[in-house]
Amino acid sequence: MPELYERLKAYAASDFYPWHMPGHKRRLVEFGNPFSMDITEIEGFDDLHHPEGILKEAMEEAAEVYGSEATYFLVNGSSCGILAAVSAAVPAGGKLLMARNCHKSAYHAALLGQHQVSYIYPELEKDGFYGAVRASDVEAALEKDPGIRAVMMVSPGYEGVVSDIRSIAEAAHAHGCALLVDEAHGAHLPFGKDCGILFPASALEQGADVVIQSLHKTLPSLTQTALLHLGKGSGMWIDRERIELYLRIYQSSSPSYIFMASIDHCIRLMAGEPGKLLMKEYAANLKAVRGRLKEQLQVLRLYEPEPESEQTPEPEKLPGSEQRKCFYDPSKFVIISDAETADGSRLAELLRKKYHLEPEMNTDRYVILMSSPADTKEGFERMAEALVGIDCMLRAETGSGHAADKSGSNTRPSVWGILPDRAPEAAMSPAEAGALQGSPVPLSLAAGRICHDFIYIYPPGIPLLVPGERIEERHLDLIRVWQDHGLEVHGIRQLSGQGTDKWTILCI
Amino acid sequence: MPELYERLKAYAASDFYPWHMPGHKRRLVEFGNPFSMDITEIEGFDDLHHPEGILKEAMEEAAEVYGSEATYFLVNGSSCGILAAVSAAVPAGGKLLMARNCHKSAYHAALLGQHQVSYIYPELEKDGFYGAVRASDVEAALEKDPGIRAVMMVSPGYEGVVSDIRSIAEAAHAHGCALLVDEAHGAHLPFGKDCGILFPASALEQGADVVIQSLHKTLPSLTQTALLHLGKGSGMWIDRERIELYLRIYQSSSPSYIFMASIDHCIRLMAGEPGKLLMKEYAANLKAVRGRLKEQLQVLRLYEPEPESEQTPEPEKLPGSEQRKCFYDPSKFVIISDAETADGSRLAELLRKKYHLEPEMNTDRYVILMSSPADTKEGFERMAEALVGIDCMLRAETGSGHAADKSGSNTRPSVWGILPDRAPEAAMSPAEAGALQGSPVPLSLAAGRICHDFIYIYPPGIPLLVPGERIEERHLDLIRVWQDHGLEVHGIRQLSGQGTDKWTILCI
Repeated sequence: MPELYERLKAYAASDFYPWHMPGHKRRLVEFGNPFSMDITEIEGFDDLHHPEGILKEAMEEAAEVYGSEATYFLVNGSSCGILAAVSAAVPAGGKLLMARNCHKSAYHAALLGQHQVSYIYPELEKDGFYGAVRASDVEAALEKDPGIRAVMMVSPGYEGVVSDIRSIAEAAHAHGCALLVDEAHGAHLPFGKDCGILFPASALEQGADVVIQSLHKTLPSLTQTALLHLGKGSGMWIDRERIELYLRIYQSSSPSYIFMASIDHCIRLMAGEPGKLLMKEYAANLKAVRGRLKEQLQVLRLYEPEPESEQTPEPEKLPGSEQRKCFYDPSKFVIISDAETADGSRLAELLRKKYHLEPEMNTDRYVILMSSPADTKEGFERMAEALVGIDCMLRAETGSGHAADKSGSNTRPSVWGILPDRAPEAAMSPAEAGALQGSPVPLSLAAGRICHDFIYIYPPGIPLLVPGERIEERHLDLIRVWQDHGLEVHGIRQLSGQGTDKWTILCI
Repeated sequence: MPELYERLKAYAASDFYPWHMPGHKRRLVEFGNPFSMDITEIEGFDDLHHPEGILKEAMEEAAEVYGSEATYFLVNGSSCGILAAVSAAVPAGGKLLMARNCHKSAYHAALLGQHQVSYIYPELEKDGFYGAVRASDVEAALEKDPGIRAVMMVSPGYEGVVSDIRSIAEAAHAHGCALLVDEAHGAHLPFGKDCGILFPASALEQGADVVIQSLHKTLPSLTQTALLHLGKGSGMWIDRERIELYLRIYQSSSPSYIFMASIDHCIRLMAGEPGKLLMKEYAANLKAVRGRLKEQLQVLRLYEPEPESEQTPEPEKLPGSEQRKCFYDPSKFVIISDAETADGSRLAELLRKKYHLEPEMNTDRYVILMSSPADTKEGFERMAEALVGIDCMLRAETGSGHAADKSGSNTRPSVWGILPDRAPEAAMSPAEAGALQGSPVPLSLAAGRICHDFIYIYPPGIPLLVPGERIEERHLDLIRVWQDHGLEVHGIRQLSGQGTDKWTILCI
């Protein structure tokens, strides 16, 4: 089948006159808008929400590429896929088990569905972020509450840590639950085989029932494009028709053909020879730069997972078993500052101002640089040069450069924020809290009160507090640390004329 | 402020290297994807979901253009605006009054919110489509049930009929309700003043609280771009923070900058001199072609509203009062076939195959050709030539051409489908129905059963039946008429090996 973009080009070049939407009538360029090739559902171009022609074929071809039961093109980002997965898997008011490091869209889904949510806290990495979800925790939570209908989790996390999806899927299925995996950051994983560096296996190959991938995050596709895959055999655990119903609900009824063409193009590119070549070059670049950074950085540090712990399950001796042992995505450059004079915010600022490298995000203690197969060798070299240069500068500032300084950030707990490792009391559900009015309470007086809003830094958008949860001192401490490091905290508000304690939280 | 697109271009041309999403790293063109200029939220480019910089400014400028309390850019189409408006206005389980010709997204919102919905049926035009919603019907419904929290309606309808929003807003507010208007087809209306043809006033000027417009439908902007406006004074009736919460929920957390730049560009274009000129040329074209079609068509007929009935409220004598008297959008070309040998489907086919004009949609009895300010004089001439040519051909086929044939399609009720003018019994709510399993029942046996799915033709996507409603013979008759005319009915399924009555409806 010719690709969708070719079809659009042919239609645009034809003498067909559009007496239909879109209203730009293919004259965008004349009006100074540089984007063209945009049509809407018309005869011959199928309907994303009821595909029967070229979109159906394109999605079926995608399913073959991925080895999925079915693959859906998403034009409203991974967010809509996550909403659809949760809404389809858990009936209104039903019970959901969620990893606490999920993206806010998973919380939104629970709010819409008035779900009763219980949380699993992932392992807390010593560098201050959430790592893997333990299969044993999932097992225990499902054992405790047989009413749970689905498990929702994210893997890889924002920092690249991958969970043991195979074991978690087994635990979920043993308890009659569907496993839904937000793999927004892992769209490149299915193309990572035999490229020269070890990538983790995609959740889709590991038994997850619904897997959502952002194409735009780690592959060459437009922002807001994503995929939802149903795993082979997922029909036992999730109703495909309900998935389709909710995808219709959470996506525009006028989906963008620019997006759909971009999705189609991206998958063809990656599945073909050009994609294989791209992944090989990418692997070579990743290996070279990771190697150099590990060798040369002294007060900065490239995050690498701990050597495999003994709990790691022994993979079966099957093809791909190497991949299954890999629980870290080397595409992520998490650069931790062990220098006293530079926190994550300063590190980001140095990269931006001095080297014109725009990082993905920073927290109080590290910066994330996101790579993709589209990165060039020159780009990687600029990154390495910059980091080595900053490292050198920071050493000069602090007058030190010894390995002793690299012992880790956990020696300075008073400076760094500590993420929670257990859930606060849920005084009411997010939906119940949302239905009530909140009133602003100064941070200093908020402990013990019930939170009305989602509180988080974005990115990554992982809620510290969820509507209906009781605020504790440790949450307020973390908010203050974030603020001290110049991070913007969403969900708190500045009131004018409130004196020194001008920051407030809406409380119930 | 420089427009967003200029800022994107400058960033793309800079030496900044992107260690952030999107993964295409601005190399899309190299990979054969023709779309560039796409970035994500990074320093200096603001965050649609928490705007504080250029997006905030762009939306504030838009609010000034429109005279709204606030205007929001939407990247998931009008659909997400409608979901957000209903979710914000009506608490979970609350009561909603909805015009029955609403787009399916309004029904979806009610399903998500588990709302109790009562319906108003608009006037039924004799040519077989829904016309205006009567203010008196809204008044009566609100009088009957004081528990209703919001009124949701669409205006203009798909065929261009506009309701008396001012009177409906007064009725809603008198009963403490917010008025939410899906003006997806009316984004051009605010720019329609003093251009040389009479356009109806936008719902925003007529007292509606939330107004949702698709930019892509009738203005030069990309598919899937839209706006949500809050009316001046809407704070009395709708909580702005709840609107913002639900817009965050129903839209990707990685919104497309291509879309946002397109929205920004479109508003600037239309609000400036180029837009005024465009509207003047457009008005001249509309006048000329509508005049010609009225004069020359004999067995086809350009829909025009009935002369004003006496019930039409006398507008106050104020500037713009002319516009307020106008309840039809002349941008729509609804071409009704009164010819015995051509139904709407054949008419669409003739336009498409013989004249290479792609219509927006057709029903059993008419075709809609959608125009916009981006249409050219040549385009309009091709339309007129084609319709006059088809009219001539059809006259030759039927051997007639007399005015007697133009008396209207209502003389052939057995041939045309008749839309319902009253609601079926709601045996359960859409949410309740959605939670149950359905089983396929042949059409011939479905009367009296409870419908599990939405049943509609798309476009326009107005549900004939909603989950939980009891199916009646008249619904089945209409489905059969639609099928006879070659229209595709969504929500019914073909079962293999079921003999002649192979079409089924999922029933509870």
